[in-house]
Amino acid sequence: MSITSAPTLDSYQRAAIIGGGVIGVSWAGLFLARGLDVVINDPRPDIEDLVRAGLEEITPALAALGLPTGNLTDRLGFEADLATAVAGTDVVQENGPERLELKQQIWRTVEQAAPAHALLATSTSSIPATAIADAMRQPERLIVGHPFNPPHLVPLVEVVPGTKTSPRTVQQAKDFYTALGKKPQVLRKEIPGFVANRLQSALFRECVNLVAQGVVTEQELDGIVTASIGMRWAVAGPFRTFHLGGGPGGLPHFIEHLGRAMETSMWPALGNPTFDEATTALLIDQARQAFGDGTIEELAAERDRAQIALMRALGETPDSGI
Amino acid sequence: MSITSAPTLDSYQRAAIIGGGVIGVSWAGLFLARGLDVVINDPRPDIEDLVRAGLEEITPALAALGLPTGNLTDRLGFEADLATAVAGTDVVQENGPERLELKQQIWRTVEQAAPAHALLATSTSSIPATAIADAMRQPERLIVGHPFNPPHLVPLVEVVPGTKTSPRTVQQAKDFYTALGKKPQVLRKEIPGFVANRLQSALFRECVNLVAQGVVTEQELDGIVTASIGMRWAVAGPFRTFHLGGGPGGLPHFIEHLGRAMETSMWPALGNPTFDEATTALLIDQARQAFGDGTIEELAAERDRAQIALMRALGETPDSGI
Repeated sequence: MSITSAPTLDSYQRAAIIGGGVIGVSWAGLFLARGLDVVINDPRPDIEDLVRAGLEEITPALAALGLPTGNLTDRLGFEADLATAVAGTDVVQENGPERLELKQQIWRTVEQAAPAHALLATSTSSIPATAIADAMRQPERLIVGHPFNPPHLVPLVEVVPGTKTSPRTVQQAKDFYTALGKKPQVLRKEIPGFVANRLQSALFRECVNLVAQGVVTEQELDGIVTASIGMRWAVAGPFRTFHLGGGPGGLPHFIEHLGRAMETSMWPALGNPTFDEATTALLIDQARQAFGDGTIEELAAERDRAQIALMRALGETPDSGI
Repeated sequence: MSITSAPTLDSYQRAAIIGGGVIGVSWAGLFLARGLDVVINDPRPDIEDLVRAGLEEITPALAALGLPTGNLTDRLGFEADLATAVAGTDVVQENGPERLELKQQIWRTVEQAAPAHALLATSTSSIPATAIADAMRQPERLIVGHPFNPPHLVPLVEVVPGTKTSPRTVQQAKDFYTALGKKPQVLRKEIPGFVANRLQSALFRECVNLVAQGVVTEQELDGIVTASIGMRWAVAGPFRTFHLGGGPGGLPHFIEHLGRAMETSMWPALGNPTFDEATTALLIDQARQAFGDGTIEELAAERDRAQIALMRALGETPDSGI
């Protein structure tokens, strides 16, 4: 590390991953590649096979990101008992089903069994930390660390404190994800869907509208996005894009003079589609045509290779950190 | 060219650019770099200086894209009389003000003065070809060729036929932009804002909402987008992204099972912001904080360098074509 004050993983040796699904495996791969010992807690009887197969699948991407992947599974363990799994860990990342009561139950156990210094984070995409922590004795310890799928590849982690989460926990989470090579962003308020998924959902609503109206097919729309706004937003977010496209007055000029025009003429014209039978059938039919060739694994691997090439070009692959 | 059937610029020697503003200059730079003779038609008395300064500014980007930029202005001319400017041209690209009557007047003159074989395209972002062509004797000849700003850099060109535009004109436009190294997409219906700007506007509405609600600042939101959905959409559009993130069932499964959930729980929760005084003040204030350092030109050049690095990494820079 060239900047001595940058966060490190020095105080992290052991991690517990609760839930060994796609997200859990992705976190596990990243944690292992970053040198942590990882224990997986998941009740499924075939969890070992699933996790090992999953890790094998993502190892090429980890290697392409410049992370060390030799003997990755030497420091991997499994523990079906939750309290035992989190005992002695420095960080707990929970990726259980999105059910409030189940998460409350998990975290009640974890807060008692995990060491007092451990970072306690949930990957939830839909349940606020406040709601989960309602059932905890130490609600100040819980925080949302919501990755954009898959966590080992996409840099963003949305760090969302609940109303009782302590500033110390917020800082701890931010430092931990930064040291992992991620780009954590702390949200200032809890809001359903957080930020990235809300934005994704807002764009997708209009995507569905345009396809349902027959303006373009799904494949054509995807091509339009990658060749314009997608490529733009990979290097400059929406506000910066308008700042640089708003003439000499930049974003202030844009907001003041074009904002109202957008509000009155564009926003009301956006669609309000519904997944009725006809729309659903059309979307499914076009999906089959667009993506019929190649398995999802093949297409995803292809996409991930392009993703990593893009990140490399922008200097955004993590250093190996070791 | 390795594929012999790929469209070429062989039948294009001379282009007329109507309107020498930012878009016109960008088109001019690209046309010149692609070997066309370009004549600019613009009534402003200082148009020559403006265009030459503009071309100088974009030349580094053209060169970085791999296009030849030596003696770029040797084949550049200016002609204030519209009919004279378009006489003898193979393509007319109009970038005049977004006023219907003015465009109708321009195109009535052009269709009479330009050769019968010339491609007639308007860069308009807001006026349908049908409305402009209403005033033309040969409405089948006019088509929208709407670039995503700036045309010399961003690949997308939305090709939007009017109700009377002939299939021949559609094909001609598609071939021309392809031969230029762009990625034209023909829309199947005229719709206000076309596709890319509608999607941009849909996303931006929620951006404004999230900042107005104090969930994130503009700068934080931009960081979230570049580190997640932006980076994703640069390599895979929204439909492909959900196809690859929807589990083994892909997009059909996503639509069928998660689509309704998005419709009922996410879309209604999206914001409906308004540019009232307080919101406008907040957005302008944050813009000043976020982008206060550096001139717009510097920031744009930095963004464009990153953009070109990204395009190179994805193999999407045009070959020199010559």
